Amino acid sequence: MFKIRSLVSALMLAGSVSVASAWEALPAKAPEPADNPSSEAKIELGKILYHDPRLSSTGTLSCASCHNTMLGGEDNRANSIGVHDQTGGRSSPTVWNAAFSKVQFWDGRAASLEDQAAGPVTNPIEMGMKSWDDVVARLKAIEGYQGLFEKAFGKDSISKDNATKAIATYERTLITPNSPYDKYVNGDESALTAQQISGMQKFQEIGCTSCHSGPAFNGEGAFQKFPINSNGYFEAQYHFKKDKGVAEVSKNAADEHMWKVPTLRNIALTAPYFHNGSVKTLDSAVTLMAKLQLGKDLSKEEVADIVAFLNALTGEFPKQTMPVLPGTPGTTLN
Amino acid sequence: MFKIRSLVSALMLAGSVSVASAWEALPAKAPEPADNPSSEAKIELGKILYHDPRLSSTGTLSCASCHNTMLGGEDNRANSIGVHDQTGGRSSPTVWNAAFSKVQFWDGRAASLEDQAAGPVTNPIEMGMKSWDDVVARLKAIEGYQGLFEKAFGKDSISKDNATKAIATYERTLITPNSPYDKYVNGDESALTAQQISGMQKFQEIGCTSCHSGPAFNGEGAFQKFPINSNGYFEAQYHFKKDKGVAEVSKNAADEHMWKVPTLRNIALTAPYFHNGSVKTLDSAVTLMAKLQLGKDLSKEEVADIVAFLNALTGEFPKQTMPVLPGTPGTTLN
Repeated sequence: MFKIRSLVSALMLAGSVSVASAWEALPAKAPEPADNPSSEAKIELGKILYHDPRLSSTGTLSCASCHNTMLGGEDNRANSIGVHDQTGGRSSPTVWNAAFSKVQFWDGRAASLEDQAAGPVTNPIEMGMKSWDDVVARLKAIEGYQGLFEKAFGKDSISKDNATKAIATYERTLITPNSPYDKYVNGDESALTAQQISGMQKFQEIGCTSCHSGPAFNGEGAFQKFPINSNGYFEAQYHFKKDKGVAEVSKNAADEHMWKVPTLRNIALTAPYFHNGSVKTLDSAVTLMAKLQLGKDLSKEEVADIVAFLNALTGEFPKQTMPVLPGTPGTTLN
Repeated sequence: MFKIRSLVSALMLAGSVSVASAWEALPAKAPEPADNPSSEAKIELGKILYHDPRLSSTGTLSCASCHNTMLGGEDNRANSIGVHDQTGGRSSPTVWNAAFSKVQFWDGRAASLEDQAAGPVTNPIEMGMKSWDDVVARLKAIEGYQGLFEKAFGKDSISKDNATKAIATYERTLITPNSPYDKYVNGDESALTAQQISGMQKFQEIGCTSCHSGPAFNGEGAFQKFPINSNGYFEAQYHFKKDKGVAEVSKNAADEHMWKVPTLRNIALTAPYFHNGSVKTLDSAVTLMAKLQLGKDLSKEEVADIVAFLNALTGEFPKQTMPVLPGTPGTTLN
């Protein structure tokens, strides 16, 4: 395992914590690394880079193609489509509130948003650029980027390091506050329906919070085994174990089927579910999680209550100005 | 021919018109059809539909994928990439200022923006939906669209007709005013450089304005033959005549190689050039147009002057708020 197994254990022991202290509203700001403090210029550059399809080999896919900032932060597909109609085995995680996780990618192999941002651009089945040297050459060929990088990082600063820093800085602004849940936690008792409150209690009672903890319901970057309980019937349907998760990277048998705990913020908007996107509805996802992780058979009513609660985790999407991407007057890079 | 041949002829006779009356700034508003007056609710709905990838079979391509509202209104590719990595033979025209043309598509087969909007969605090599019935069923399955259509068109109004009306209404707002050219025409003599003014004069003198006339430099929806002059050397390189233009639709020999006159607004941002996107730079495009349409061999200096002028047609892109697309809580359509 990479890290933070201890956090999971700590949270598993936290059953006795009172409701008042266990439930937390989403912070208005995300934590940022010491070597990449936020600035308006970085956010603006990052937003532009994030939406620029020229970061893909075909000039057709930007970060936003699979992590759509106009939707729930992903593409509602089981697997995203990369350049030349290629698909991988995992479902795009949402970019909204990703800043509240200490690790990125389903297998947590990136320790920061900066590290994560570097990945898809040169992944041959995603954005398909041959190398970051090629990406940097492309950015340098787009005149307007010189000034944008200069404002954010100083003179002659177009580089992989700064591009990913800018993208990460922008992503730290992608926070969805004021969900009904947040309003409730902040004292507005009318913000949740009776069913949602019942679902919230059930969610804690059966043990969902042992992993889906913290303000983003993601264990803040914890890892967990999935599925914990073997179930041949479900496995035949959903093939959860085909992908070994963390072990695919670490090659360590102890990491087999270990996964980053995904956020439940806006979970209603990010179907289909699980690392391989094999489960189409939130109802099924809740049923499966209870059975496979907690050994519980939930009644239809219990599932409906928990799903009602999870719908209360849909937040407000901040108003964003659409970026105007710098052009290449008189010619094209594609 | 569909229409407006007479306009082309009229403009060809207009050589004696004084500069003052021939050069026009871009209007702040586009004309709109009597049966689809603009409203804020239609613009908002149209913007959302325009950016919604669920209007494609794979859930990955929206109108904006090929007609990018963050760039020059297209994708800077010779040919766009549709669902399943398919490409057609024509280059995406820009959506910016398209409202100032009386016909749409390279072959002008759509008589309005409304008609145009209906096309790509069900084109099997573009957005790939099987039928507009399927599109409407999909829109009806996205809860938030009910209210958005209701605001724009009244109760239970989700239909192909209204979806394309909303998209067209949004497109009529995609206007880029205040280019250096516009400022110059409006009296600011410092808005153009000496080279740009020289290019502007050359542009008129050699006859470019005989087709590229009107405020959008598009003959307002005129048709013209391209190439007029046969040139085996260029044809071998660029294959302009492989596509028969209007005749591909009308099956009329008289329409062979007739094309809608494209706008020159923001032309610097929409490389590569011509109906098949075969020409990578604006310099080459100007050289070729002079030779093939006007029988003129331009000097390098003349080309540079005209290109400088064409760069002065790049306007201001309006600030837009990024739309928030309605979700399908708890499930997915893809």
